[in-house]
Amino acid sequence: MMDRGLPGYFSEEGSAETVNARIGPGADARLAEVMAALVRHLHAFIKDVELTQAEWEQAIGFLTRTGQICDDTRQEYILLSDVLGASMLVDAINNRRPPGATENTVLGPFHVDGAPRYEMGADISLAGGGERCLFEGRVLDLDGNPVAGATLDVWCDNEDGFYDVQQPGVQPAFNNRGVFTTGADGRYWFHGIRPVSYPIPDDGPVGQLLGQLGRHPYRPAHMHFIVAAEGFETVVTHTFVARDAYLLSDAVFGVKQSLIANFVAAEGGEAQWRSEFDFVLVREGSP
Amino acid sequence: MMDRGLPGYFSEEGSAETVNARIGPGADARLAEVMAALVRHLHAFIKDVELTQAEWEQAIGFLTRTGQICDDTRQEYILLSDVLGASMLVDAINNRRPPGATENTVLGPFHVDGAPRYEMGADISLAGGGERCLFEGRVLDLDGNPVAGATLDVWCDNEDGFYDVQQPGVQPAFNNRGVFTTGADGRYWFHGIRPVSYPIPDDGPVGQLLGQLGRHPYRPAHMHFIVAAEGFETVVTHTFVARDAYLLSDAVFGVKQSLIANFVAAEGGEAQWRSEFDFVLVREGSP
Repeated sequence: MMDRGLPGYFSEEGSAETVNARIGPGADARLAEVMAALVRHLHAFIKDVELTQAEWEQAIGFLTRTGQICDDTRQEYILLSDVLGASMLVDAINNRRPPGATENTVLGPFHVDGAPRYEMGADISLAGGGERCLFEGRVLDLDGNPVAGATLDVWCDNEDGFYDVQQPGVQPAFNNRGVFTTGADGRYWFHGIRPVSYPIPDDGPVGQLLGQLGRHPYRPAHMHFIVAAEGFETVVTHTFVARDAYLLSDAVFGVKQSLIANFVAAEGGEAQWRSEFDFVLVREGSP
Repeated sequence: MMDRGLPGYFSEEGSAETVNARIGPGADARLAEVMAALVRHLHAFIKDVELTQAEWEQAIGFLTRTGQICDDTRQEYILLSDVLGASMLVDAINNRRPPGATENTVLGPFHVDGAPRYEMGADISLAGGGERCLFEGRVLDLDGNPVAGATLDVWCDNEDGFYDVQQPGVQPAFNNRGVFTTGADGRYWFHGIRPVSYPIPDDGPVGQLLGQLGRHPYRPAHMHFIVAAEGFETVVTHTFVARDAYLLSDAVFGVKQSLIANFVAAEGGEAQWRSEFDFVLVREGSP
């Protein structure tokens, strides 16, 4: 008879417990908690699917290639987290809000600090092109009162589906980016272009995985917003262009019903489209 | 009211189901099964620990660095799998054997094809050094009958804890490696050195993680064996040196009670130590 499962020796049955029993008393309590849970779920996954040796080798190769394609401007592991819904789940857990408050969605990899501060009404499209659009609305608290002094940091792709940082030398720096501050009425309005849907970078291991799973790499058209105000929780979110073909199949699962904004053809005036959306902020320290 | 959880839109509650509903009908059935289980367990892990945004960023950084340190001679992701017990678990699931049969353990990263074929009694230590040891025993079937024509592919570290491939130019090629074939009596015997305990490479992300968890990087001393014979399941295993200080805390969880071998001080003769161990093989296609 073999002596399986003695304390300290590995056994299939007690595998996770054996691994976690090794964590030393000096380990940070939170790290110990997170890693022990990771080991439990990792082992449960391997047991559920009875992972084969060949599949394990494929996984090792995939994880290695995903790290090796990363560089200063490409983060394939964030992409992997995004397409598995992990980024959105972490965002959701850390940004639970009461009904009526504007929901968060993923920051994405294309935010840039230091975008130009503009007066309301400015045009963030420095390169022109695309279909012109007026973005407007209010920043409110949960009681419907205007929030003065709120900043809106906004950014979107160009008419070809690329952010300025993806095309240095092609697009001017800070094309389709700007920071605005509300006055006493809580109102914002600025000009830009109607965003378009675009594929996430799909020429690496993550794109290959999407292909094997029969999934497309597209994100529905959206305008990014970070809305911040003294005394309120910061909202990191997008507004999505209503009726976009990819709303129900965003490659990174960023869409929430409450974030879909109307984009209506404007009559007269300079903008071709108009999108109105109110942001509702929650006071810091609210239950 | 927000509309959470509509089909196709992301919600915290239904996160894994939303992600898995995207798998297309053309995906390979096994890939779909494995990835759906991975997503379920990954999301359950994130929910269990309520992973923070900062912890998620640390995880992304860790996974990226782990890929980037890999090269032709270093595989940090295998090391990560090893220290989390995942390698041993995959090995265990894929090599379940009846009581009495020799158990598997991890192959490890230091096996080399094409080691010299020796006659029984040869010395695999080409560089000398260390404490000399005679390894001997039998290859048997489950009924105790000798298995003729079984090959034993053996390898171990040198007296400083390094395999030859870790020290090209320092150790001769195939130092402490050899392949032997049993005769009609199923017996094997060869000379070498008593293996010593050694740390796995711990100057990378995985070593850093072990340190943070209060774990040491050592493996107890062991001799590797791949025992193969026509008509039998191949056994990939080690024999461990009894009373090694790290038997109960192998950094990669490779130790099984049944694989601990006696190493006794030999009286007279040329070897200082003697280790006897019988390998018991299971016929292919056994239940």
